[in-house]
Amino acid sequence: MVRDLSQRMDICSVNTATLGFQAPIGETIDAIAEAGFGMISPWRRDTKDLDVSAVARHIRDAGLKLSGYCRSPYIPAVTTEKYRANIEENKRAIDDAATLGAPVFIMVVGSLPEGSKDIEAARRQVREACSELVSYGRNVGVKIGLEPLHPVYAADRSCLTLLSEALDWCDSIEGAAATPQIGVIIDCYHVWWDPTLHRAIKRAGEARRIFGFHVCDWLVPTTDVLNDRGMMGDGIIDIRLIRSQLEASGYQGAVEVEIFSAANWWKRPVKEILHICRERFQTAT
Amino acid sequence: MVRDLSQRMDICSVNTATLGFQAPIGETIDAIAEAGFGMISPWRRDTKDLDVSAVARHIRDAGLKLSGYCRSPYIPAVTTEKYRANIEENKRAIDDAATLGAPVFIMVVGSLPEGSKDIEAARRQVREACSELVSYGRNVGVKIGLEPLHPVYAADRSCLTLLSEALDWCDSIEGAAATPQIGVIIDCYHVWWDPTLHRAIKRAGEARRIFGFHVCDWLVPTTDVLNDRGMMGDGIIDIRLIRSQLEASGYQGAVEVEIFSAANWWKRPVKEILHICRERFQTAT
Repeated sequence: MVRDLSQRMDICSVNTATLGFQAPIGETIDAIAEAGFGMISPWRRDTKDLDVSAVARHIRDAGLKLSGYCRSPYIPAVTTEKYRANIEENKRAIDDAATLGAPVFIMVVGSLPEGSKDIEAARRQVREACSELVSYGRNVGVKIGLEPLHPVYAADRSCLTLLSEALDWCDSIEGAAATPQIGVIIDCYHVWWDPTLHRAIKRAGEARRIFGFHVCDWLVPTTDVLNDRGMMGDGIIDIRLIRSQLEASGYQGAVEVEIFSAANWWKRPVKEILHICRERFQTAT
Repeated sequence: MVRDLSQRMDICSVNTATLGFQAPIGETIDAIAEAGFGMISPWRRDTKDLDVSAVARHIRDAGLKLSGYCRSPYIPAVTTEKYRANIEENKRAIDDAATLGAPVFIMVVGSLPEGSKDIEAARRQVREACSELVSYGRNVGVKIGLEPLHPVYAADRSCLTLLSEALDWCDSIEGAAATPQIGVIIDCYHVWWDPTLHRAIKRAGEARRIFGFHVCDWLVPTTDVLNDRGMMGDGIIDIRLIRSQLEASGYQGAVEVEIFSAANWWKRPVKEILHICRERFQTAT
């Protein structure tokens, strides 16, 4: 038995990337609230050059909560200077997450710096940086959510691909914890294909490390692996099955729609996108 | 220490797809032999409507050996009739592999049949079919090589993605075997990103299940995940590292170049492609 999302709009969240950044964040907040959603997950680019406290107030005034804040600048670098600068940039982003009141900072960790073929080195840098960022986040009240990405992004966006690997990293960084400070973001687009997924979800649930659940769909054919993601129900992912596995493992948090779709959804009016998202949360999620 | 491929052209193989099927198989065989390669891996489409025995003779007369024969028709289907037909079609292909004298039949197993979201069902069908095809292959002297594909193809081309998963399937189909009849084809394009790769290669080597090694490169950016693969050295895969891991695990077989590259390599003259392949076997493989 999965939760009936038609009765739980309070946990249904809209990641602002879904709307293609068509409108300033103020309008976006209002549109999401008016469409009946209870949560929002903004991106850093939404708040760039703005007073983040004012954005936080706007979100609160609209009656929305945050399911997360996207996302980390990439970590790996060839030089120590650049690597340190990347960590500092992540701390500034975590500060913003704290100001916004986001419970979790979403980390897409980056991968091979230019000129490198050493993915193990990238992984070592990310793990080391995460140790530092977990401590930093604890001090400002923001948890760290590692989002493993689909292996198609392994060269340029994320050296972290498997959910099981993300959990290994959490364990090595933090050890067992009653109230984990580092956990995982499970995006069905990235993990649906993994034969070890169900096992990894159980493990994540037992460790209380599931900090977020993102939904969209995998289209067949996919014309662009970055920006041709599908609305729930339009592709081949059994989203309901994955959600049921998460909830069976104890997950009670938000369900967040995040769709990168340059050629289709981003070209539609914000109201229409939100209307269909809401419908598909109930029929295909 | 890896083998010095400049001294081992006898084990350097050209998969005919690398040449874009520009020429009839007879010309392709001659061009590969003239370029100094010792092996070839033809596709079924090369021999379509031809006398396969004559092609086999041509390959032998050119002094080439076969490293494999590509590839299986997809297995999964919604109806039992179609599923059975797919298995029978695979048997015909295995017959051709035997006629050609190919030691191994390369299996790209297929994935979700149209309308299905049940990847576990597809996996069950494939495992069951493989049991039957292993027996069939044994009778005609052809081994079965399971090729896990990159997860970007998980929806439409291969429900088998991880090398570790392929080895699990081999174990469940055949059990431990002194002379395994089913094994894996390791294509660095498909597996380079996997954090468990090195462990899986060791396991595959110990079980003597490495039946082939394919090389090409992952380009950044990749403009088309099917047909924008790179020449060795042009991308970010540490091919030498992966080859050294295979050889350390006991692999002594062929190294086969297989590049799908509609917009670049396939547009070049066959002689030029082969010349550069040969060079890159030595400098970047």
